[in-house]
Amino acid sequence: MRAADLLVPYPTVTLSTPAIEAARILADADLPGLIVVDDRGAPFAVLPGTQVLRLAVPIYCQDDPALTYMVDEAAADVFVRELGDRTVRDLLPPQPHELPVVSPQATALEIAALMARTRSPLVAVVDGGLQGAVTLHGLLDRVLAA
Amino acid sequence: MRAADLLVPYPTVTLSTPAIEAARILADADLPGLIVVDDRGAPFAVLPGTQVLRLAVPIYCQDDPALTYMVDEAAADVFVRELGDRTVRDLLPPQPHELPVVSPQATALEIAALMARTRSPLVAVVDGGLQGAVTLHGLLDRVLAA
Repeated sequence: MRAADLLVPYPTVTLSTPAIEAARILADADLPGLIVVDDRGAPFAVLPGTQVLRLAVPIYCQDDPALTYMVDEAAADVFVRELGDRTVRDLLPPQPHELPVVSPQATALEIAALMARTRSPLVAVVDGGLQGAVTLHGLLDRVLAA
Repeated sequence: MRAADLLVPYPTVTLSTPAIEAARILADADLPGLIVVDDRGAPFAVLPGTQVLRLAVPIYCQDDPALTYMVDEAAADVFVRELGDRTVRDLLPPQPHELPVVSPQATALEIAALMARTRSPLVAVVDGGLQGAVTLHGLLDRVLAA
């Protein structure tokens, strides 16, 4: 089995998508992460769910736990409101050296090793344009049944 | 809202659980990750789904993509069989400096920042013993509705 056999259609966001909308897409469809595409529809970034959540965490809290302790419970409940109308582009974390992207020919083992190495529960499948994504659970279900 | 309000009961595995069984638990219950507890029931590790998958990726393939390309499709389909009866203890990756574990008093913002920082889509909630876990999607649903 190859990426072509494992991929599923997958929603995308763009660099201009408001970050709050990206978080809602992730939450509403219970996705493991999001694919951010550029103007030509090619994957620009693949964000695991934790890194979509990171878009919504105020910059001053991202790396310093001590600062999060100083925010009271009422304000901590509504931290996503601080996002305002900022876009994915405004908040995108530095991109890793290796994007979780494969060709349709990638084997199950190649995809598993890539997910483990990049800590990404989804990989984008690209052949010219974006063909879809392989999710961690989609892959696991298939390899455990093999 | 605090971790105590956000936590859900969460399955655990131990260091002696066969790695293949851990992968099955993750897949069957569609979990974002697994909590590995020690003999006293305290969290020893919190493994995001990608790191549970990593348990099943042969060591020689984990860091070197070139080696995965050399495995043919038929063998790549059944890579999990190489696990044999090895346990979570045998295959556990080096543990990060910071475990995604909070007290029941942690705020939504503290939990979100911790998930983003540790790249873990679940955090264990501990008060004496393990009380449960907060998942990324459970947290997102609540903070987006707040």
